[in-house]
Amino acid sequence: MTQQLEDVLAARIRIRPFIHQTPIFQSQTLNRKLGCDVYFKAENLQKTGSFKARGVSHFLAMLPELPAEIATYSSGNHGQAVAWAAASRGCAATVFMPEDAVLAKVDAVKHYGGQVRFAGLTTQDRFEACRDYAAASGATMIPSYDHDAIIAGQGTVVLEVLEEIPQFDALLVPTGGGGLLGGNSLALKSLRPHCAVYACEPALADDARRSLESGTLTSVAFADTIADGTRALCLGDRNWALIKQFVNAGLIADEDAIMAALKDLAVYLKLIVEPSGALGLACLAANRERFAGQRVVVILSGGNVNLATYSKFTAGEHAGSA
Amino acid sequence: MTQQLEDVLAARIRIRPFIHQTPIFQSQTLNRKLGCDVYFKAENLQKTGSFKARGVSHFLAMLPELPAEIATYSSGNHGQAVAWAAASRGCAATVFMPEDAVLAKVDAVKHYGGQVRFAGLTTQDRFEACRDYAAASGATMIPSYDHDAIIAGQGTVVLEVLEEIPQFDALLVPTGGGGLLGGNSLALKSLRPHCAVYACEPALADDARRSLESGTLTSVAFADTIADGTRALCLGDRNWALIKQFVNAGLIADEDAIMAALKDLAVYLKLIVEPSGALGLACLAANRERFAGQRVVVILSGGNVNLATYSKFTAGEHAGSA
Repeated sequence: MTQQLEDVLAARIRIRPFIHQTPIFQSQTLNRKLGCDVYFKAENLQKTGSFKARGVSHFLAMLPELPAEIATYSSGNHGQAVAWAAASRGCAATVFMPEDAVLAKVDAVKHYGGQVRFAGLTTQDRFEACRDYAAASGATMIPSYDHDAIIAGQGTVVLEVLEEIPQFDALLVPTGGGGLLGGNSLALKSLRPHCAVYACEPALADDARRSLESGTLTSVAFADTIADGTRALCLGDRNWALIKQFVNAGLIADEDAIMAALKDLAVYLKLIVEPSGALGLACLAANRERFAGQRVVVILSGGNVNLATYSKFTAGEHAGSA
Repeated sequence: MTQQLEDVLAARIRIRPFIHQTPIFQSQTLNRKLGCDVYFKAENLQKTGSFKARGVSHFLAMLPELPAEIATYSSGNHGQAVAWAAASRGCAATVFMPEDAVLAKVDAVKHYGGQVRFAGLTTQDRFEACRDYAAASGATMIPSYDHDAIIAGQGTVVLEVLEEIPQFDALLVPTGGGGLLGGNSLALKSLRPHCAVYACEPALADDARRSLESGTLTSVAFADTIADGTRALCLGDRNWALIKQFVNAGLIADEDAIMAALKDLAVYLKLIVEPSGALGLACLAANRERFAGQRVVVILSGGNVNLATYSKFTAGEHAGSA
């Protein structure tokens, strides 16, 4: 059965004890530069540094009883969220990560007490390794986006936004596997049908845009972008079912625009945001005419960076958004 | 007459329409590293990127009528606050800055519509230039720290803290001219006499510590630190009158500890903080034994950085606090 609004509303109540209600920021200077009224929902300040804490918290809250061990596969932020959620509830966690995972994200999984296992480079590689491990060990497997409980948990972001900003024109959502987009587009369109929702992707990994334009779930062959959190080659099936129903269009930003957005977020909002997390601003800056004069909500989905790499991105003289 | 608690309480009501009530953040990971329970008051997210917006807003709120022009002298953050406050109230602003001011701070003053004039390298140079200019032009001069209205405005930070964190053991305050420290130590000791207050300075500009240890207002000859907001060579007279009465001691951090604090704030709190703004954390990390097991409030006083310079500080592999 397709997800309903009530699943997201219930998720909010279920996960509230575990997560932060993240703040929403504005910059008058950025508003002037962009020609619209922008609200930034700072999920980079969420527990574990990304919105992933919501979905995982909801997955665990829906289980009839806590398992002895949970296992997952993740390029990073979801893995951190699983390790953190497991530790805070007293169960073990094993996270299958790609061999080229961002070091800071590997360290963070370990830091939260999770066990890291490396498995290939693709989502398929680590999915299979995790599935086999879970079958052998009896661990409960937590998927990273293609699951109803995860999607409903991620969708709670926009419920918090609506409490503070009851009326706005558009929501911009960084999109990888589509859990954040699926849950939030479902919730927003159910409550504010006239509000537009956009998938925000790197130009180098624009599978959601291609899917929306063709009307058919479409993969990309490569996703070699600095936005490492959006390297999923394809939306999940459950996510796509929601996205094709509730999302207006896909927007893209090139790599330079993503770096310019990182800089603007540092200079004007004083926030460290990871490249994937800056996609909403990058796509907004690349599509100013579309949003001129509008009230726009941008989800900053995460802030987990390797500081040395991040510093390279921000080291050039600040040139503003593309 | 010396400042009273009621001046700070009144200031809070006067400036509330103009400023942000800034958020307070925690990091469980930093708490574990530091061995205490730390609350970070994020004045880097204040209007204009520093606490200086408070003092200036209060100075203007105390004037019987708004002048046609205001003028000030500042190495940066105070100047931005003056330019912003002037623009938002429809009066002109002229800011005298040192010739070696951080470019991002100069640009920000101009961005807010302020006129920048350069005057020498020392506080005395720009004070005299500003005084002469004000005498000739009729502009109202706003001092950067040694003024009762400014001090009372800055002291409102800890009133906001007490609303959210009613009970804590110590307050750590970055200290340059002493406006932030004077106002907040007055307010805190008047309301929570058993709470300790510390001046936090770079080891290279430790005039407040020297003054507190000797009991006599003491200057330093140079202040060549990356913490450019604390390069004042001496506390103001009015600030010192409060500081000697209400501050427990001065703490210092070396330049490496300041850079390590910048990194920790980026990695664990996802916040861009300027070197001066990170002094509270740097001094806490350098004095862990003193604060072991305590509940500590650290004021992050500002976040205005030249992003290229900041990125150099954060570019090394993250090594944690000193």
